[in-house]
This record gives sequence, C-alpha cells and structure tokens, in this order.
Amino acid sequence: MRFAIDAMGGDKAPDALIQGTLQAAEHAAGDQFILVGGEEARPAQPLPANVSWRTSSQVMAMDENVQNLLKKRDSSIWIATKMVKDGEADAVISAGSTAAQMAVAVILLGKIDHLLRPAIAITLPSLEGQKIFLDIGVNADVEPPMLLQFAQMGAVYAQAIGVAEQPRVGLLSNGTEEHKGNTLTQEAYALLNRSDLNFIGNREGRDLLNGGYDVMVTDGFSGNIAIKSMESAFHLLTTILKKELTAGFSRKMGALLIKPALREMKKALDYQAYGGAPLLGVKGLSIVCHGSSGAEAIAASFQQARNCYQHRLTDKIAEAIL
Amino acid sequence: MRFAIDAMGGDKAPDALIQGTLQAAEHAAGDQFILVGGEEARPAQPLPANVSWRTSSQVMAMDENVQNLLKKRDSSIWIATKMVKDGEADAVISAGSTAAQMAVAVILLGKIDHLLRPAIAITLPSLEGQKIFLDIGVNADVEPPMLLQFAQMGAVYAQAIGVAEQPRVGLLSNGTEEHKGNTLTQEAYALLNRSDLNFIGNREGRDLLNGGYDVMVTDGFSGNIAIKSMESAFHLLTTILKKELTAGFSRKMGALLIKPALREMKKALDYQAYGGAPLLGVKGLSIVCHGSSGAEAIAASFQQARNCYQHRLTDKIAEAIL
Repeated sequence: MRFAIDAMGGDKAPDALIQGTLQAAEHAAGDQFILVGGEEARPAQPLPANVSWRTSSQVMAMDENVQNLLKKRDSSIWIATKMVKDGEADAVISAGSTAAQMAVAVILLGKIDHLLRPAIAITLPSLEGQKIFLDIGVNADVEPPMLLQFAQMGAVYAQAIGVAEQPRVGLLSNGTEEHKGNTLTQEAYALLNRSDLNFIGNREGRDLLNGGYDVMVTDGFSGNIAIKSMESAFHLLTTILKKELTAGFSRKMGALLIKPALREMKKALDYQAYGGAPLLGVKGLSIVCHGSSGAEAIAASFQQARNCYQHRLTDKIAEAIL
Repeated sequence: MRFAIDAMGGDKAPDALIQGTLQAAEHAAGDQFILVGGEEARPAQPLPANVSWRTSSQVMAMDENVQNLLKKRDSSIWIATKMVKDGEADAVISAGSTAAQMAVAVILLGKIDHLLRPAIAITLPSLEGQKIFLDIGVNADVEPPMLLQFAQMGAVYAQAIGVAEQPRVGLLSNGTEEHKGNTLTQEAYALLNRSDLNFIGNREGRDLLNGGYDVMVTDGFSGNIAIKSMESAFHLLTTILKKELTAGFSRKMGALLIKPALREMKKALDYQAYGGAPLLGVKGLSIVCHGSSGAEAIAASFQQARNCYQHRLTDKIAEAIL
C-alpha cells in the first residue's frame, strides 16, 4: 500500500509525522511512504528505501481559514490528497486542520454519489470494546436524512474495522424513550426505524462508554460536545487523582505500587492511540489524525488506513448510499 | 424557613427523603420541615418537633407520563408544590420525576413574567471550583432568545449561591472562535454579545470541568448529552481503575494505601452531593434533586434551598427578565 503523509499538519509537525512514518515503515517493507513537506523540514539523514520525500512550498496552518485553500495548491495537504486522486497513493494521512483536510478531499476526491455530507467517525474505548461514534466533524447543522446517511456509513465502517458484523445502531438523544429528543432526532428516529439498519433506538450520553451499541449517530455539534465533555471528565479525574496521590507519605507509597495500573488505565482511555479516523463519504481514503498526535499515534494510523483499504471502505460506502 | 418535601419521589423514596429530612432538621431547630407522602410511608416513631407529616393519597411515578398530572392533584409533588403557592411553605424539594415537578411548578406557581421557558441549572465541580451549567432540563428544542434568558437566570443564580459576583457567561459550542457553532448558537451569540451580561464568547465541552467561566449556557438537549457523557467517562475510568487495582498483590497493597485519595476524588466529583438545583424561572422555590439521591444528598439540598431563599433568587430573576 502507498501512503501520502502531510508532514506539515499537526501540533507536533513535522517531527511527529516523520518519526511516526519511520516507525511504521520499519515494519512494512512492502509498503511505500511518501512524506510531503517543506524543504526545511526534510530530514538530513538518508531515508529508508520505502520512504521518500516530496517537497511542498506552502502550509495550511492549524487554524487557518479554509477559504485560503484555493490559493494554497502547493500546500502539503493539497499535494498529498492530489496524489490519492492521481493514483500515486492509496491513502492520505494528516494531523493538520480537519476542516482543510475535509475541504481538500471534497474538492479533489469528490463526494460519493447521492451523499449529502461527509462525516468523521471516531472509535471509542467502551467497557464492551471499541465502538463507532459519528459525526464528530464539521457538520454543526444537519437534516434528518444526513443522520440516516451517517448511520449507514458508520455501519459500513464498523464492519470494515471489525467492531461488529451486524452493527447495532443507536441514535444519541436526551433519553431512551422513543418520544425523547429534539425535532432533528425525532425525525431521524423515524427514518432510521424504516431503514435496513439494525436500529436499536435512542441511546444516552452515558451509554457512549458503557456500550450496548456498535455505532452511535449524532450531528457534528452534539458529537463535538460529547467527545470534549468526556475529555474534560478524564482530565478532571486524573488531575485530582494526581494531586491526591502526592498528599502524604503513605499515598505516595501507594501511588508507586499502583503505577502499572494507572498506566493501563491511561492506555485504555487513549482513543487517540487507535490512530486516525477516515473521512467517511469521499471517493478515496483520507485519514484524519488528532491535531495533538505524537509519533506513536501517527504510526498507528497506518494500520487504520490499511484496514479501510483492505475492506474497500470507499466502495462499500458507495454501495450503502444509494 | 419552611420546607415541603415530596417524600414519595425518587429512586430511594421514601426512605432517603425521610432520613435526609431528619438529618437536616436536627441541625435546624428554627426551620420547619413538612414531609408529604402516603400514610403507609409515614414513620412509626414520633417525629421531632420541627418535622411534621402531611398525608397524600397519590403518587406520580418516576417515568409516568406528565399528562397524568391533572388527574393526580392529591399526589405528594402536587400537594408539596401547592403548599408553596398557598404560602404554607417557602420551598418544595423533590427527587421525583423532573418533568412532573417542572409541570406542577409551572401550573401552580406560574412562570415569571416575560420568561419564555424555565430551565434547570446544575453546579459542576470544576478544577477552579463550582460552576453553573444550564439548561440540563426539558428544553430539547430552543430558540436563541431562550438561551439569552437562560444566561440571565444562570448569572443571577451564580451570584445567589456565591459562584461569582460578576459571572463570566460562556456559550457551549463546538469551538471557541466566534464563527463556530450551529445556527442556534450563532444567533444566540449575537444576542448575548449585545446584552448587559459579562459574555466571554464560545466555550467548548472540554472547558466544562476546567473552568475559565462561571456560567455555561446551552440548550437542554446538548446539556443532557454533556452531563451524561461526563458521567460516562467517570464511570469508565473508575471501573477500569477498580479492575486494575485488584490485578495482583502489590497493586492491592497500593490500593489500600491510596484509599483515602480515592475517597477524596469521589467526593470532589460527586456533583449530586451539592444537593439539588432550583427550577429557574418559576414564581417560587422548587428544588430538583437527582432521582438517585440518597439521604445525604437530600440533606444537602436544604442548604441549597436556603441560599436561594436568602438571596431572593425568584425576585432577582424576575428583575433580570424584563
């Protein structure tokens, strides 16, 4: 498989992108890795045989207005995505501005036919194992038919990466009863209920990490709030725990003894380590990594791309959206 | 102060309600506590001088359709709220169905003039101290002017319970930049920006427990999702921690040593212990307790009611909503 990597995107670019790529390349002699970035970012040491460098002259900054994109056709994200369009790569990987990555993908690769809006799905580490949650992308205002399509794409993705063969699809709402929800979710409920999907009805925020579903669907606004509220809770809890664990000698001793437990906990919660999420609904593979991704998260994203590629995710979504 | 307590509402009713009331009454000789409940729930032992029992013949069940309310004018929540209306009590306290409590309050006490919708505010335990978050109530579909009024009520409430004198009001959105959000929040942003409030712009889910604000405003749908997503995260983290802390002898030893730290952590996170939240926007004090409240949470809710009463919360909200 051939990967085009946007070496300039992300909070830790270009280092994390380059190191992550080199880590992945070491264990994948049969794959090709093309790093796209500014000449100044190019590593001084010689690259392995399966890694090459392609020079770009522009950068889309993390918070840059997407409007600027069309003036940045020599940016790393544009060139890397164009390589997928031109058949020079099978997937593009970026930790840069998600809005820019989405826009370039729609412009260059195009939306799948009949699709209203592409979406971004994340894998959540629930007590029951990995789950799919979407949209956590840029769709702040959506219509009920979009939620149906998100559910269809999420179900295909869940199958592709082995979450479930017959994914149970839940609709995120403010209560489990059928009459709960806002106008958007109530109309979406009816559409989902009539669809071929294995729809299990409304589910609540508290179900997200408990399980009992395989794919949870919501709009991009609520999805963003749910994800960041969970992050907020993890942050508060670990901050308090750290403080409490250093308050006195016996607690410090105890903290030493449970260090491996804390490490396991952190690992289980680190959904960024699952490594990237595909843009669902564009004609080609474009993998979104968290902006704060380190080398390990980047390295993990290649496996995610491989899963999607081997399971022909793009084709299968096109078949589902008819 | 005189309290009317709905002894029949809540997952642990009537025991938690009766025990919580007796706990509170012990330290408040000058206050009067009127428990309202079925004859069968009445304690056999004699009640203290400042606690009395008023018998009701009906119950509104936790998940009962609010439509049934008008046929249940002898239910404990109806009678307890009517006591506030009739001047026989200064506040009603319930851990029963929130929808029913809200509906009875609107029917019997009435909405404050010019108010579009009452709301429910919760106090969040952030790293910076207590914060106010609303609406976490029943308003799934709202209009921008309602969010402005929620903000006005939240600011008055924050002042009343001592969160801040000049509360910083944030709008929950999917990004901090002004252009972020959905149609609802973008229009609300403009209204908030033009208001007299100390509006600090858009804030994200991750800010909820970090701080940097005093009052966070959102619609009831997003508020519900945020709260329950945080609960979901706490639950996952503590479940994993428990499992990891029992995996091997040294971890078990460590767990013993850090037990006080874990207890402190749990206490810091237990926002239910803050004890009840007032229905904001009705002409009288009606305190909503979490359905799963135990005796301690119920006992704490009386202090919350006292704060609201002493700071003339209802009058001040009426002055803010003009």
